[in-house]
Amino acid sequence: MLRPRGFTALPRAWPSRAASSSVAAAYYPSEPVAPSLVTASVPGPKSIELNQHLGAVFDNRASYFVTDYGRSVGNYISDADGNQLLDVYCQISSIALGYNNPALLATAASPQMASALVNRPALACFPPADYGRILQDGLLAAAPPGTNKVWTALSGSCANETAYKAAFMYQAARRRGSLDFTDEELTSAMENQPPGAPDRAILSFDKGFHGRLFGSLSTTRSKPIHKLDIPAFNWPKAPFPALQYPLAEHVRENAEEEARCLAEFERIVRLHPPHSIAAIVVEPVQAEGGDNHASPAFFQGLRALTLEHDILMIVDEVQTGVGACGKFWAHEHWDLAVPPDMVTFSKKFQAAGFYFSDPALQPAQPYRQFNTWCGDPSKALLARTIYQEITRHDLVARTAQVGAYLYGQMEQMFARHPAAVHSLRGENFGTFIAWSCENPAKRNELLMRMRSVGVNIGGCGNHSVRLRPSLVFERAHADVFLEALEYSLRAL
Amino acid sequence: MLRPRGFTALPRAWPSRAASSSVAAAYYPSEPVAPSLVTASVPGPKSIELNQHLGAVFDNRASYFVTDYGRSVGNYISDADGNQLLDVYCQISSIALGYNNPALLATAASPQMASALVNRPALACFPPADYGRILQDGLLAAAPPGTNKVWTALSGSCANETAYKAAFMYQAARRRGSLDFTDEELTSAMENQPPGAPDRAILSFDKGFHGRLFGSLSTTRSKPIHKLDIPAFNWPKAPFPALQYPLAEHVRENAEEEARCLAEFERIVRLHPPHSIAAIVVEPVQAEGGDNHASPAFFQGLRALTLEHDILMIVDEVQTGVGACGKFWAHEHWDLAVPPDMVTFSKKFQAAGFYFSDPALQPAQPYRQFNTWCGDPSKALLARTIYQEITRHDLVARTAQVGAYLYGQMEQMFARHPAAVHSLRGENFGTFIAWSCENPAKRNELLMRMRSVGVNIGGCGNHSVRLRPSLVFERAHADVFLEALEYSLRAL
Repeated sequence: MLRPRGFTALPRAWPSRAASSSVAAAYYPSEPVAPSLVTASVPGPKSIELNQHLGAVFDNRASYFVTDYGRSVGNYISDADGNQLLDVYCQISSIALGYNNPALLATAASPQMASALVNRPALACFPPADYGRILQDGLLAAAPPGTNKVWTALSGSCANETAYKAAFMYQAARRRGSLDFTDEELTSAMENQPPGAPDRAILSFDKGFHGRLFGSLSTTRSKPIHKLDIPAFNWPKAPFPALQYPLAEHVRENAEEEARCLAEFERIVRLHPPHSIAAIVVEPVQAEGGDNHASPAFFQGLRALTLEHDILMIVDEVQTGVGACGKFWAHEHWDLAVPPDMVTFSKKFQAAGFYFSDPALQPAQPYRQFNTWCGDPSKALLARTIYQEITRHDLVARTAQVGAYLYGQMEQMFARHPAAVHSLRGENFGTFIAWSCENPAKRNELLMRMRSVGVNIGGCGNHSVRLRPSLVFERAHADVFLEALEYSLRAL
Repeated sequence: MLRPRGFTALPRAWPSRAASSSVAAAYYPSEPVAPSLVTASVPGPKSIELNQHLGAVFDNRASYFVTDYGRSVGNYISDADGNQLLDVYCQISSIALGYNNPALLATAASPQMASALVNRPALACFPPADYGRILQDGLLAAAPPGTNKVWTALSGSCANETAYKAAFMYQAARRRGSLDFTDEELTSAMENQPPGAPDRAILSFDKGFHGRLFGSLSTTRSKPIHKLDIPAFNWPKAPFPALQYPLAEHVRENAEEEARCLAEFERIVRLHPPHSIAAIVVEPVQAEGGDNHASPAFFQGLRALTLEHDILMIVDEVQTGVGACGKFWAHEHWDLAVPPDMVTFSKKFQAAGFYFSDPALQPAQPYRQFNTWCGDPSKALLARTIYQEITRHDLVARTAQVGAYLYGQMEQMFARHPAAVHSLRGENFGTFIAWSCENPAKRNELLMRMRSVGVNIGGCGNHSVRLRPSLVFERAHADVFLEALEYSLRAL
């Protein structure tokens, strides 16, 4: 099936998709069947020229290529030169249903959307009459098991930071009981000093990524370049398991590693005064940090320890959430007896925020968890359509299936290239699949080779590659990807 | 002209606007000529019922009333019960051109908007081909004098925080010179410790408001309820002048107060090691903090001191910016010899971010000022239309004129109610007008009375009222407002 050859020709006779079973074909009758490259390399000359103009006014040094979103369709992203690439990166894991999805275009053209855009409300002060319904049918219908309330924000960073604020206010209220704020608290808060601005902390994990604003960046532990020169809170971090692959061959070592991390977590907690760690924040898979997984047992152990020490548990599903991981929410894999206290989201939902259930996580006084906009109804409308389309087309189960197929094929392929790639991970985790390369230079070379045969793909960590396709990435797309990967690995 | 009477009847025969000179009439042929109240009080029964449902899933305890945005038009906001109120609060100063503005509706219906919504890009990695043009014709065409670059964010809070990050990276790079990061910096940054995560600070001013995320909240000094229980950076604050009104009667006292504040600012700066204060952040008018003004001489003095001490100056125009203050940017009133290093914006532009000119404020390495979305092209499209409409209709000059009329009328009115209201402020500052009441209870009573006669209006500080109408608030609207205010003051 794998036929190594060039990808530089225009679309060729690829096996057509069985329309009856393909959601992508139903959404995108004109989706290409293969990448199509019309310039010798990507970015091509038009991308380069447009980028030079853009660079005069906007920091675009991270640009892959200038994109023609009008011509992008389904799983294929088009660049300014007319190249069409299979996209398994999807705007850093943010495109849920493919480019120019017709259901989302209908939502974008709706009178509700027009009103949400041109009459942007201060949601907590002047809520639109339909906002409750939009939340109920969308974001809240998608709420993780055990949660039934939502706070809406604007980005993954502020989703996490507002969750942190909820945790700090909750812990302070618990300690304060029914008492009012003291004069000392009222005065010291204005001076940024305890007890009003207390020394409490959010504990995060080594290699975790939770955003780039000041609170979230203090919990981000991915790479120095994310953190250098920015003041940070003196908050603790704990080790995250470094599992060895294949998992089946390292059962004992990995169990020991997870036990070590749990013990170290508990040791760090005990070093801190009781209740001085308000919450932990943890990703189901540390995505930016290198797609680091841990077992359900590890997360069950963490949950037990947080309950024992009266620490809240915030699960950051900004990258893992909304269907790509084999469940709607990745932490559903854990089978926790007590659900997380808060679950944050953004990216594939366009809308951002956090879920919770304990009413005490909503501060007793208004105007504490508050800001001008408190979210954005235009994004809540998009999230509702995204949720409804995922449900209607059973996209979580479909993504789990294509992920299983992809993983199986890659397992076989990687056995043929043991020097180039290793540590394939994400089995039974939908299309949330990653692997590692020999070193950062080889990883970057592989990313470039994949692009040169028409696949847009991203790295993570120092020497890993991550797959982040949309939820309408199907077996036919997987086959295109697999052929490109085999070709690229042989050329390495 | 002021005819105290009830406002509870349906629209009455109000003098019609001279269409030839009214932008509001051109935009909004069906805009009401007066408030219209159909329920005995606001919120009415439908608002209350809808709010009870919404409260089950969303923190809406700050709600004024549930809003019918579909029926809102121009300067009039409609609630769920069918009441139509003249809006001089405008979603906490966020509605630039009135409700359901036809030019913005056209932008909302454009193919560019549809694409921006459904194909939301990771702007720094996959910039749309038209993003440079959208910025050039919109946000950058509106750039304050002396700035020519923009960084786009999502809210006022993250506009300020990304500006703070730019300041910290700039100061560290200046000190580091051409050297690379040291191993100690690389290692300590990952531990949230200096020197990698340094002890530098942003200095802000007493009663300033700059947002509610962790970095911005550390610079916010408005009220304890905004800050309580949230850990904060140990950053310094300086006093902001407390001017006495009328200004003409307190020339000497106010000059002394501003000199005192400048001296105290310099004293605080000198207490800190050189370059440990990376930047100051200051609002042209401290809006949330009570509409506190200071003279151009004060800001000129601040600018001179920041230059002398090698401290960056960030002007927070989140609330003051975009045309309501008599200039497009409020700090244009100051006639600074050297422009601010960064100017932040959000609210009326829908798009958020900061302006700058020094290329060194863009870090030398990519991926440092970076995040998944780096802004939102759907908001940049709205900002472009807002800017173009402001220019086309000369709305800054018009708002300055109506503000001058309003201020003059209020000055006369307040002379008749010296016990109820005082410290009228905002002369020559467009419609950015405020005043103080006897005490917080009387202020809140005035806000309620204004609402009961059909004017939606907001407070600021502890006992002040602020006007924040749109830029299409004209003399006819001012007359409706003035009559409602006279009636309410008499009833106090």
